[in-house]
Amino acid sequence: MNETIQTLVNHRSIRKFLDTRLTEEQVHCIIQSAQSASTSSFIQAYTIIGVTDPELKSKLASLAGGQPYVETNGHFFVFCADLRRHRYAAELEQTNVAASIESTEKFMVAVIDASLAAQNAAVAAESMSLGICYIGGIRNQLQEVSDLLQCPEHVLPLFGLAVGTPSADTDLKPRLPMENIYHENLYNDDSAKWMNELRAYNETIADYYEKRSGGTRRDTWSGQISRMLATPKRLDMQQIITAKGFMHR
Amino acid sequence: MNETIQTLVNHRSIRKFLDTRLTEEQVHCIIQSAQSASTSSFIQAYTIIGVTDPELKSKLASLAGGQPYVETNGHFFVFCADLRRHRYAAELEQTNVAASIESTEKFMVAVIDASLAAQNAAVAAESMSLGICYIGGIRNQLQEVSDLLQCPEHVLPLFGLAVGTPSADTDLKPRLPMENIYHENLYNDDSAKWMNELRAYNETIADYYEKRSGGTRRDTWSGQISRMLATPKRLDMQQIITAKGFMHR
Repeated sequence: MNETIQTLVNHRSIRKFLDTRLTEEQVHCIIQSAQSASTSSFIQAYTIIGVTDPELKSKLASLAGGQPYVETNGHFFVFCADLRRHRYAAELEQTNVAASIESTEKFMVAVIDASLAAQNAAVAAESMSLGICYIGGIRNQLQEVSDLLQCPEHVLPLFGLAVGTPSADTDLKPRLPMENIYHENLYNDDSAKWMNELRAYNETIADYYEKRSGGTRRDTWSGQISRMLATPKRLDMQQIITAKGFMHR
Repeated sequence: MNETIQTLVNHRSIRKFLDTRLTEEQVHCIIQSAQSASTSSFIQAYTIIGVTDPELKSKLASLAGGQPYVETNGHFFVFCADLRRHRYAAELEQTNVAASIESTEKFMVAVIDASLAAQNAAVAAESMSLGICYIGGIRNQLQEVSDLLQCPEHVLPLFGLAVGTPSADTDLKPRLPMENIYHENLYNDDSAKWMNELRAYNETIADYYEKRSGGTRRDTWSGQISRMLATPKRLDMQQIITAKGFMHR
């Protein structure tokens, strides 16, 4: 296992950072790494907003659900799907690209592009012994976050990435068994196999929480996931995405 | 710049592989790395299908647009958005999660989860001196690809990842200027700035193609992107996604 793979498999989300700002060089390295990720047909359909202004960070934290690590970290990045620069590019070429930009396909391209870039940013940060935490919470009040960061049409914030020097370590969280995530040649939809794997995984997760909590918490994966999914959340997502000029057809 | 960041910034897509299969250990390492990526609220909403059967690969290649590197590589992975196992998990808990699973928000979560995992897979492969190429082309005839791999409801193939031993090297492709992709605190929608940056970038890209082609090709980024976006593609995407049980609200 080489050094890079060691970094990857040792990932854990960090939710407590020292109040030490990233250096300009670290930020540069992280963005350069993000930009080096693959991008669909070279489209580069994302923008990264680095939020350092304390007032903005505090407002973001409150919109995202009040997590202290959105406010206190070394640097806060917001990854946005962005097809706006492609309109400018088309203007230079006097071409009409509106129908493409409004398609569901191109929105997916932008979301995937932004996510590949973000994961490179995360890996770069962790390789420099920084900790990271993705913040999906910015989608709790997405329109307000978009307004706060002044994102225009065809630019949609997707998630945040808090980066900084960890002030507390966390344990590695065991993932689903590999045979559950990885299928060979065909999708294996054998319900008895699924159920067995999920029951076994529930045991693993229950042990993990029990050990981590000193015996006070015993929770399973299916329990946790079912409770989370029992109430649908963020039902304004489709409306916000289409109002931004995406996914019209 | 540490070894991991060197791997990240040296990424280039490889489109010509030796016909040498990845070892089981390499595949294991790649999947373990993929699974170690962050996942929204621990939902792990993706499945990876490793396609090694020569007949399946050949059919996939033809559905994706006939690229030889979909057929000839060391291993071909298909990353799928997957909320199916969460239905099984909810069954174990006798909970109804249908409304959540059908939401646009949860489809986005699955696409982002799958993409973060895929980029970890790509980085792991490159750190082992393997080459990679993402294949968005599987969305050209997505319903057929989904049927070929027997993906049931709530499972949608998103993109492929060809991995293997490179048989030809390619050049690093210069990305958009950092100030175009990275904004500080607020989105900077200054159209004069955009236009200047895109014009400068067009020069960079024109030089890149000219050098690479020995003077026979001179193309710009805005030219290439505008031509690509002039005709909308894959307009069946929304219909396929909703037919799969995603994005109903």
